[in-house]
Amino acid sequence: MSNKKPRTAITPTRDEDFPEWYQQVIKAADMAENSPVRGCMIIKPYGYAVWENIQKNFDSMIKDMDVDNAYFPLLIPMEFMSREAEHVDGFAKECAVVTHHRLEADENGKLGPAPSAKLEEPYIIRPTSETIIGDSMARWVQSYRDLPLKLNQWCNVMRWELRTRIFLRTSEFLWQEGHNAFEGEQGGVEDHEKMLEAYATLVEDYMAVPVIRGKKTPEETFPGAISTLTIEAMMQDGKALQSATSHYMGENFAKSIGIKYQNREGGESFAHTTSWGLSTRTIGAMIMVHGDDDGMVMPPRVAPYPVGIIPILRDDQDKEALLEYCRDVVAKLKNIGIRAKLDDSDSRTPDKMWGMIKKGVPVRVEIGAREMEEGTLTHVRRDLGRDSKETCSVADFVTKLPSVLDDIHDTLYKRAKDFMDSNMAEVKTLGEMETLYKDGHKGFVKTPISVLKESDLQRVEKDNAITARCMPFSDNGQTVIFGKAY
Amino acid sequence: MSNKKPRTAITPTRDEDFPEWYQQVIKAADMAENSPVRGCMIIKPYGYAVWENIQKNFDSMIKDMDVDNAYFPLLIPMEFMSREAEHVDGFAKECAVVTHHRLEADENGKLGPAPSAKLEEPYIIRPTSETIIGDSMARWVQSYRDLPLKLNQWCNVMRWELRTRIFLRTSEFLWQEGHNAFEGEQGGVEDHEKMLEAYATLVEDYMAVPVIRGKKTPEETFPGAISTLTIEAMMQDGKALQSATSHYMGENFAKSIGIKYQNREGGESFAHTTSWGLSTRTIGAMIMVHGDDDGMVMPPRVAPYPVGIIPILRDDQDKEALLEYCRDVVAKLKNIGIRAKLDDSDSRTPDKMWGMIKKGVPVRVEIGAREMEEGTLTHVRRDLGRDSKETCSVADFVTKLPSVLDDIHDTLYKRAKDFMDSNMAEVKTLGEMETLYKDGHKGFVKTPISVLKESDLQRVEKDNAITARCMPFSDNGQTVIFGKAY
Repeated sequence: MSNKKPRTAITPTRDEDFPEWYQQVIKAADMAENSPVRGCMIIKPYGYAVWENIQKNFDSMIKDMDVDNAYFPLLIPMEFMSREAEHVDGFAKECAVVTHHRLEADENGKLGPAPSAKLEEPYIIRPTSETIIGDSMARWVQSYRDLPLKLNQWCNVMRWELRTRIFLRTSEFLWQEGHNAFEGEQGGVEDHEKMLEAYATLVEDYMAVPVIRGKKTPEETFPGAISTLTIEAMMQDGKALQSATSHYMGENFAKSIGIKYQNREGGESFAHTTSWGLSTRTIGAMIMVHGDDDGMVMPPRVAPYPVGIIPILRDDQDKEALLEYCRDVVAKLKNIGIRAKLDDSDSRTPDKMWGMIKKGVPVRVEIGAREMEEGTLTHVRRDLGRDSKETCSVADFVTKLPSVLDDIHDTLYKRAKDFMDSNMAEVKTLGEMETLYKDGHKGFVKTPISVLKESDLQRVEKDNAITARCMPFSDNGQTVIFGKAY
Repeated sequence: MSNKKPRTAITPTRDEDFPEWYQQVIKAADMAENSPVRGCMIIKPYGYAVWENIQKNFDSMIKDMDVDNAYFPLLIPMEFMSREAEHVDGFAKECAVVTHHRLEADENGKLGPAPSAKLEEPYIIRPTSETIIGDSMARWVQSYRDLPLKLNQWCNVMRWELRTRIFLRTSEFLWQEGHNAFEGEQGGVEDHEKMLEAYATLVEDYMAVPVIRGKKTPEETFPGAISTLTIEAMMQDGKALQSATSHYMGENFAKSIGIKYQNREGGESFAHTTSWGLSTRTIGAMIMVHGDDDGMVMPPRVAPYPVGIIPILRDDQDKEALLEYCRDVVAKLKNIGIRAKLDDSDSRTPDKMWGMIKKGVPVRVEIGAREMEEGTLTHVRRDLGRDSKETCSVADFVTKLPSVLDDIHDTLYKRAKDFMDSNMAEVKTLGEMETLYKDGHKGFVKTPISVLKESDLQRVEKDNAITARCMPFSDNGQTVIFGKAY
């Protein structure tokens, strides 16, 4: 056995430096980059296409659940924040504050906010739209006939973050935020469960990221909520990433913002509300779950293009004929609803191949003179690498591609699930858990629910930089899962 | 002939007070409303669904043209604005300025920007992303191999407006902005023509709004552009609304922001760029082109739901059976890809009918006990009113509906086109034009191009509150069209 390190496309490798590996994968796959605006990212076309696919799939799910999309203002009046501050301890004060509405040049010609255009009351850029959507709901809901009211918004939000990391924590990010209102407890409780299941479906069935569905412990529950549900995924460094949450607020939010209505008996009731959100953060999770030392590995159902085609050109060859043959393959795949990207640039062939590998294109197709003569093509799976290289007729490829893509999805999911399962320890006591982490355990630890009552819990969490991730549904609330978290 | 005014659902009528009619239609159709944030609107579900349909159709067009979507920061560094200020006279200074990044409570507990969290350099909320996208393009374009680069962004933008009107002019609005770069003049010129044609297709073929395609006069050309193309629509008050524009900047923008590249000869060249945008403003145009004195009239291809179904319930009747019959119609239409909305609320039947009329649902279906027994339904076209009422079998309805919707589209388009044509005057001189407007002409006036050189032009424009809308392509630049404009 050789000790020689195999050549990888990404330096450093995951083992060497996971956080730096993550940044390098994003760069190599050309998904996003830092911007000239502190803490804000630019989502490049290859990264944005993933977000569009996430949006498309989730949007169609929530429309089937009778949720309506709408759009609310970017700015939040200060008065709304004061209201929230009264009710919510954990209220985020780090936010972008708009204080002026005009620029003007000073005596030296330097542009700045015009003193004459100072706003009487500043606005803040929405860190969430909870208050401004709630304010509308309070006006729109007058009678039980107006319920349920289910609203969702796809938008940008802003929270001033000091330490940022692309996709995972940025001052501006994209998300959807849903805010639903119901007549009674049952409607609200069922809704926040249904929404969590929609997230789990999205993340597992489209992004191939296995998650643990569960309920947050009282300490981790969203301020003001009766119950916070979460899906937690395990990254390849063993850390947890909370991929989406769904909250049931009972009547708390409705009472603070005034969502009351005439009930069926003619009296006045407060609505039961839920809120639920998923952001571009999940793209970060997908990278850290599937990426390898050669770059990104895209799950086929959200991949910008599931197939990449590379024409293998030689100097003496009829370039146009080969490209025509390749374009015909693109067209045949388009007919069955699968997007293929032809790299007809004049880069070198090895650069094109490594480009596709680093971008994690699920299936790479290579077509040279021999393939063209024979009516075939050669294809390689990103998840299995060069051992999966095969040559077959174009017709056969088109026929089998949908099931190949399904198999790639299943393989990625199973690989990640096996990883999560094998990095999940189970112990009976707080002491055992602490020993595990002190001994270098990377991953989750499951304990009996009784651990939450131990007086030493906070110290153990703090010393080991772990938190209670959730009480998994699968154990009916009898256990808690701990882990380090992003 | 009776002088009695017919009852209308909207007060005032278009003739009585067009601007107020417009606001009342939006309210009656439940499309949008003013928000607690000065000058910003809330786009309600029924209005937002129109925007989603516009987005879906236009997005698929631009993707076919190899445009990539991406996302750039909401905030623009002041330094970028200064750069733009140097180059652009018409640079907009009315914008939202972010000066602080934290809130804190003062001694009285009142929240405000924290003095300790004042930004060294303020940011502004994007009024357009031209500079920040251009800055990226300058980094991304190094070689002719990187061209063409075609980027589009769907986002919110903000311009501090003093006098606002929902959809037409609001401080925050939604739009797409495209920014493309090419190797040479030909690529840029062709691109800005192609993009204008895409807009014309979107607005005419989906929104049923006829437009005049043309080029802006030098005075009306976008600052810094070589050529600005526009599509102009005529509202029912005879005023023009510029529905979308497409600019060719030559090398001007590339020079100011540094988009240069190594050309095919090994030398250095500046890219030729275009930019093109369409906003939620077009929804306002659609309302003012198609709406009538009973409310909105939705063009079927962007209607949130082309069909609305009203169950006509009587007290002694089996409600559930009737609703089941209605749901079956909804399912049958879903099968052919047409969305139908069943109003199963417990509002009164006349309220439901007027609700659908005011919302402008293209085809209203009424189903009562008789229809259910006979396996039929009754349907009415919004564009033709009660005279178009017909009863037919459900199967026949499903079969003919697609062509009925096409016919509604064609009818709306033709009606608007006839209106525009009949309100287009043609004169030879500036004097004749002025007389027309002084005599109360509402509509456009076409003149020979030579009028642009007359010294009295500016005075005539100012006195009559008109502007040169465009030099229509159809006259090969030999004429100019004038009009009052939104």
